[in-house]
Amino acid sequence: MVTIIHSVTIVTLDENDSVFDGYVVIKDGELDKLKEGKPAEQILDAAEEVIDGKGKWLLPGLINTHGHIGSSFLRGAGDDMPLLEWLQTVMWPNEKTFDEDIVRSAASLAMVEMIKSGTTTFLDMYHLYMDKIAELVAESHMRAVLCRGMIGNCPPDEQMEKLLEAVQLHKNFHGYNNGKVTVALSPHAPYTCPPEFLEKVVEQALLNQMWIHIHVAETKEEVLRHEQQYGIRPVEHLQQLGLFRVPCMIAHGVHVNEEEMQILADNHVYVSHNPKSNLKLGSGIAPLTAMWEKGINVALGTDSTASNNTLDLFEELRFAALIHKGVLEDPTATTASAVLKMATVAGAKALQLNSTGALVKGNQADFIMLNPKKAHLSPWNISRVASHLVYAAKSSDVTDVFVQGRPLMKNGELQYLDEEKIIFEANMYLH
Amino acid sequence: MVTIIHSVTIVTLDENDSVFDGYVVIKDGELDKLKEGKPAEQILDAAEEVIDGKGKWLLPGLINTHGHIGSSFLRGAGDDMPLLEWLQTVMWPNEKTFDEDIVRSAASLAMVEMIKSGTTTFLDMYHLYMDKIAELVAESHMRAVLCRGMIGNCPPDEQMEKLLEAVQLHKNFHGYNNGKVTVALSPHAPYTCPPEFLEKVVEQALLNQMWIHIHVAETKEEVLRHEQQYGIRPVEHLQQLGLFRVPCMIAHGVHVNEEEMQILADNHVYVSHNPKSNLKLGSGIAPLTAMWEKGINVALGTDSTASNNTLDLFEELRFAALIHKGVLEDPTATTASAVLKMATVAGAKALQLNSTGALVKGNQADFIMLNPKKAHLSPWNISRVASHLVYAAKSSDVTDVFVQGRPLMKNGELQYLDEEKIIFEANMYLH
Ligand SMILES: [Zn+2]
Ligand SMILES: [Zn+2]
Repeated sequence: MVTIIHSVTIVTLDENDSVFDGYVVIKDGELDKLKEGKPAEQILDAAEEVIDGKGKWLLPGLINTHGHIGSSFLRGAGDDMPLLEWLQTVMWPNEKTFDEDIVRSAASLAMVEMIKSGTTTFLDMYHLYMDKIAELVAESHMRAVLCRGMIGNCPPDEQMEKLLEAVQLHKNFHGYNNGKVTVALSPHAPYTCPPEFLEKVVEQALLNQMWIHIHVAETKEEVLRHEQQYGIRPVEHLQQLGLFRVPCMIAHGVHVNEEEMQILADNHVYVSHNPKSNLKLGSGIAPLTAMWEKGINVALGTDSTASNNTLDLFEELRFAALIHKGVLEDPTATTASAVLKMATVAGAKALQLNSTGALVKGNQADFIMLNPKKAHLSPWNISRVASHLVYAAKSSDVTDVFVQGRPLMKNGELQYLDEEKIIFEANMYLH
Repeated sequence: MVTIIHSVTIVTLDENDSVFDGYVVIKDGELDKLKEGKPAEQILDAAEEVIDGKGKWLLPGLINTHGHIGSSFLRGAGDDMPLLEWLQTVMWPNEKTFDEDIVRSAASLAMVEMIKSGTTTFLDMYHLYMDKIAELVAESHMRAVLCRGMIGNCPPDEQMEKLLEAVQLHKNFHGYNNGKVTVALSPHAPYTCPPEFLEKVVEQALLNQMWIHIHVAETKEEVLRHEQQYGIRPVEHLQQLGLFRVPCMIAHGVHVNEEEMQILADNHVYVSHNPKSNLKLGSGIAPLTAMWEKGINVALGTDSTASNNTLDLFEELRFAALIHKGVLEDPTATTASAVLKMATVAGAKALQLNSTGALVKGNQADFIMLNPKKAHLSPWNISRVASHLVYAAKSSDVTDVFVQGRPLMKNGELQYLDEEKIIFEANMYLH
């Protein structure tokens, strides 16, 4: 199957950071050609499908490296509260009532929101019905890394049960749906998982060739308490437990010091930066530029709608690009191009996906298109496209979303998920 | 003329912060009734127009208290650069080439962007063709405060020419277009206006009953240089020059200390908080919560697209609500309701407009409607509407915009401005 999309402005986010007017040839789900100008007659003739891009921008699909889609119904259930009060009065009591129907509906709602806002790939860490979520993800045709989140503060037999579920998820769904679903291991956090449990997780990761995703250093208090309990800081602790012997991505890393950043860099540990969630919960602002200086690969994530409250990576791009300039009082702290790469190329690396992220020949055809005929994207020319994507574009400008060459959204219309039904069912939850 | 809009969820932002399902009666451009439930037959019969709100949210139009719409074409012309380099290589050389056509087209583009993103009222401070902008604003039917921005670092005859233009703008356009256009005086900033000039501005403000808008303490360096030159800090300086004898709103106030905040509070000086522009230029983060504690009325503004890069107050709401929580590591630092009031009630007060802002009987019928049937606004009920407006809604959810009871946008369609033509003309600027 060969598809050509012509008359588009292509933002490759490859090593040359090329932006040009041209066309894309997609062959069997992969990017076969990315060329300047108009396709020749014989190229068009060889295609089963020819799409006129009508001047749209075409760029890699965005990659959300941290979230919990099963809890999406808690959007706006509690805001502006102290963290512990929020957990005790909103999150935990609500999550206790979640049954399979709620989790399925919430996950579907999250996927609608993600596709509509230009996300092609996401990571989901959740503790309920992950096998059902895997099937839903496959139906949506999104690319996803799924992890059965494990809180280890429980009796050994419960720990083992969780670990077994997590490994079983890998056995059942790693490589599922033509490779679009992969599975990683996810102990929740150092403060919710005792050392012996983390060692067992590492063991299973090595045995099953799984990589590890874990929350680390989200709040100052959590780090303080860790130091009191263990006498060392969380990143050093994880290193000692052998966690970094397997590929690893940590979420947040808001309160990591110089030495911890050095450990992360030395061990090629990836970081999922979640600026909006960290702001909203009052956790703070991760040292993005210091991480970059150490050579750490930092990706972007939204966390869940309970603490963000959107799954919109265009918003995350905007916050990541702006807040560090402000806090450091340095407008050169971030650049549009570096931030775009966090949401694409770096995201793919962090999720251990080696053929998505940038638009280069041979990569999976995971890309999105935006309609630039908007007041807030005007005026524009090639030299302003990267700037507009980070500083001015809105997720509502996204018109088309492709994963593995397959359209998940065409001109704003979802192709696999029933948007209206899913929104209706979500609202049933509160009525 | 009587119009009824029923089947809406109304967010009044009045003193009771009411949110309820009901209807609005608009009579001759004013809010005549705001009631729960369905309108009775005889009420419907008395109306010339009945609009079915179909479950939309109806709230006060947003108020943008600081901007420079004539420079809108510089969106994305230069980002991620040091401030001085940006001014010297992007802003100043470009602005020198602006003729009347460019300024008119840029102002029109800005108004399209503002209306589409739910703004009903804005302040514009600019130095070129303000009389032409006044006419354009009138054609758009937006509500606006216009100021001929004055840089006073020039020979006395040039100073007088600028001041004369500024006062003349007031004579010609204050109260124009059925009161929707008003005019204020706008010396650019303490560091660009010598004391003698500022004293003349105060004199003219008193003579002509005009209020004053001025940039203050945007960057740390500017404040340092001010102290070196005058031996006192900018706010104290302005107080000594008598500026606060007239109603006054300052833009930014990023680097004001405790004493300066006390002076602002004591003199009922309003502050326009521009979080995104302050972040992007690396100016810093204004002490919003400290200002609130002093009792200062803080409104919201975008500044221009050259430093933001959007005129979207939904984005500004999001940043204002989130960044202070993060910087202070306190999730209770701001609340959805307080931030919504910055963009509405506080904005009206800051712009010396006494009958817009909240939805209460007798106020001007300046309001907007949003379509909540979106994944990112689901699930919702009455208790989550304020949260969703601040933490989840996007400007693209805005479907209808009314000013003085007149629809400027109906179901996403602009009624007075030719969106397609204005976007086309804006792009001509770069081609
Ligand atoms: Zn998380
Ligand atoms: Zn300004």
